[in-house]
Amino acid sequence: MFKIRTLVTALALVSSISVASAWETLPSTAPAPADNPTTAEKVELGKMLYHDPRLSSTGTVSCASCHNTMLGGDDNRPNSMGVNGQTGGRGAPTVWNSAFNAVQFWDGRAPSLEAQAAGPVTNPIEMGMKSWDDVVDRLKSIHGYHVAFEKAFGGDAITKDNATKAIAAYERTLITPNSPYDKYVSGDKSALTDQQVRGMNKVAELGCTGCHSGPAFNGPGMFQKFPIHSNAFYAAKYHFKNDKGLAEVTKNADDENMWKVPTLRNIAVTAPYFHNGIVKTLEEAVTVMAKVQLDKDLSKEEVADIVAFLNGLTGEFPKQAMPTLPPTPGTTFN
Amino acid sequence: MFKIRTLVTALALVSSISVASAWETLPSTAPAPADNPTTAEKVELGKMLYHDPRLSSTGTVSCASCHNTMLGGDDNRPNSMGVNGQTGGRGAPTVWNSAFNAVQFWDGRAPSLEAQAAGPVTNPIEMGMKSWDDVVDRLKSIHGYHVAFEKAFGGDAITKDNATKAIAAYERTLITPNSPYDKYVSGDKSALTDQQVRGMNKVAELGCTGCHSGPAFNGPGMFQKFPIHSNAFYAAKYHFKNDKGLAEVTKNADDENMWKVPTLRNIAVTAPYFHNGIVKTLEEAVTVMAKVQLDKDLSKEEVADIVAFLNGLTGEFPKQAMPTLPPTPGTTFN
Repeated sequence: MFKIRTLVTALALVSSISVASAWETLPSTAPAPADNPTTAEKVELGKMLYHDPRLSSTGTVSCASCHNTMLGGDDNRPNSMGVNGQTGGRGAPTVWNSAFNAVQFWDGRAPSLEAQAAGPVTNPIEMGMKSWDDVVDRLKSIHGYHVAFEKAFGGDAITKDNATKAIAAYERTLITPNSPYDKYVSGDKSALTDQQVRGMNKVAELGCTGCHSGPAFNGPGMFQKFPIHSNAFYAAKYHFKNDKGLAEVTKNADDENMWKVPTLRNIAVTAPYFHNGIVKTLEEAVTVMAKVQLDKDLSKEEVADIVAFLNGLTGEFPKQAMPTLPPTPGTTFN
Repeated sequence: MFKIRTLVTALALVSSISVASAWETLPSTAPAPADNPTTAEKVELGKMLYHDPRLSSTGTVSCASCHNTMLGGDDNRPNSMGVNGQTGGRGAPTVWNSAFNAVQFWDGRAPSLEAQAAGPVTNPIEMGMKSWDDVVDRLKSIHGYHVAFEKAFGGDAITKDNATKAIAAYERTLITPNSPYDKYVSGDKSALTDQQVRGMNKVAELGCTGCHSGPAFNGPGMFQKFPIHSNAFYAAKYHFKNDKGLAEVTKNADDENMWKVPTLRNIAVTAPYFHNGIVKTLEEAVTVMAKVQLDKDLSKEEVADIVAFLNGLTGEFPKQAMPTLPPTPGTTFN
């Protein structure tokens, strides 16, 4: 927690400085930590684990249930639905391009994809497994996983650490390149419409890029207060402050309503919006953001231009092969 | 209903005749009805619809949630879990090779894959949509589905009829060839072990093939009474008769405990067993079947031999590409 706190303080300073951001394209590969280099074998194993509902107590919820790789990487719901129909208070962030987040979860409590992957599996309202020991026991009883872990890590390799490493390695491959924006920035001036270019300039002019810049539009700071400006109308309508964000983890008053700055990549296909998923349309999300973060009232035309630009941030979702999940011949967990 | 009744009567007669069955291999393609010939465009659309959780009220349950194409075509649960964590009283039959079932659902109430596909979507404890009109409205609001339906059917084509036709066309491609059994029957005598061959002969000798023969081991009759022989021990333990099967549909006493004869293809990877999914292991399922259907007590060795043979019915699950589901830019249903 101490580390997060220091980070937040440092970055709150950075992110309060308005930066004249250069427009950057999305890298085609994501950096991996030194102790978890990306390999084809790990990615293949990670894809299996990511899509395997047997990592949940009921056998019905996989990582992909809420972070759907066939959709925009989320579930298009205000809150996700875990085992036995349970729901929490936050929406599922998209898994696409999550490799470019410096921290994970809405409250940024996980410093890596590896750390994030460990969380939902044993969360009682998400995947509901009692413990990672139980998860490892399950995996160890599936012959095909012995083979896949051995290929990825060598030796007797079914552990929590390796399972989360494999999932993270797979997630690092979930990148959506070649959005109209990327093509435009790379020199194809026909890739964005005039309206989209107006929106792009407006985004910079208003100061949205103070927090949403860089290749994934989620930096330079990792955390930001939301909402910054009190607004009685939106407070009553959307009760954004009910969830204290990072402070729910650190129990530190200074962290109240501090949130990870989410990527704007594919924002058009990941409705509904905000940590509590309470805003259903991108138009309203843009209007709200301008008001509560920048204290600005946008015209209908400005909102339309910005939304048009944000639509230009939808990338190409690479074709993937479905994993074949290894069976448990003659028996079942559930 | 009248049609089903006539069919049942006719087939109950047929299936009571012990047939000296020839061992047949699985066809590589499934027959399609005259009004729904299989085309690549329909299969592609059907695959999208089959995997789209937005066909459920909560946006969390797709056909694939319970009939998982990454697993053995089911969910390995005694009963499936629909929207909001609801469960019913029956297990999900496998979708793999379902094209070779003459009738669909455990109680055989649907005469085709097309008819089956229409059911779960509006079942309140499964996918929970209020009506197919609502489903069609949803699909019509997704641009990508207009494109895909037009490719598959031409013109203004988003209808319930076409949606279920596309899903059925996709399901007809879900065939698992080249099981050890198929290789053996095709001449590769090394494809089954000696134990598996003993089990195969035992299956014929006991009379299992009276109901479970043909390429999918689910004919010649479509329906069979289960259990046939009363057994106080199993009645108390597994209460198979609580669910009246076809009689729940026809309300006809003669149909009580009549069930579609399920395929034995991939039976080893589709635990748990029976309509109520109450038997967790294949060993126990074989023991129970011999007793309540054939009134025979099998030795431990006989059960092991038959289970070994049934493991030889696990086919090759063809690699599939994941569909990319068309987005709803800037908004969401849920």
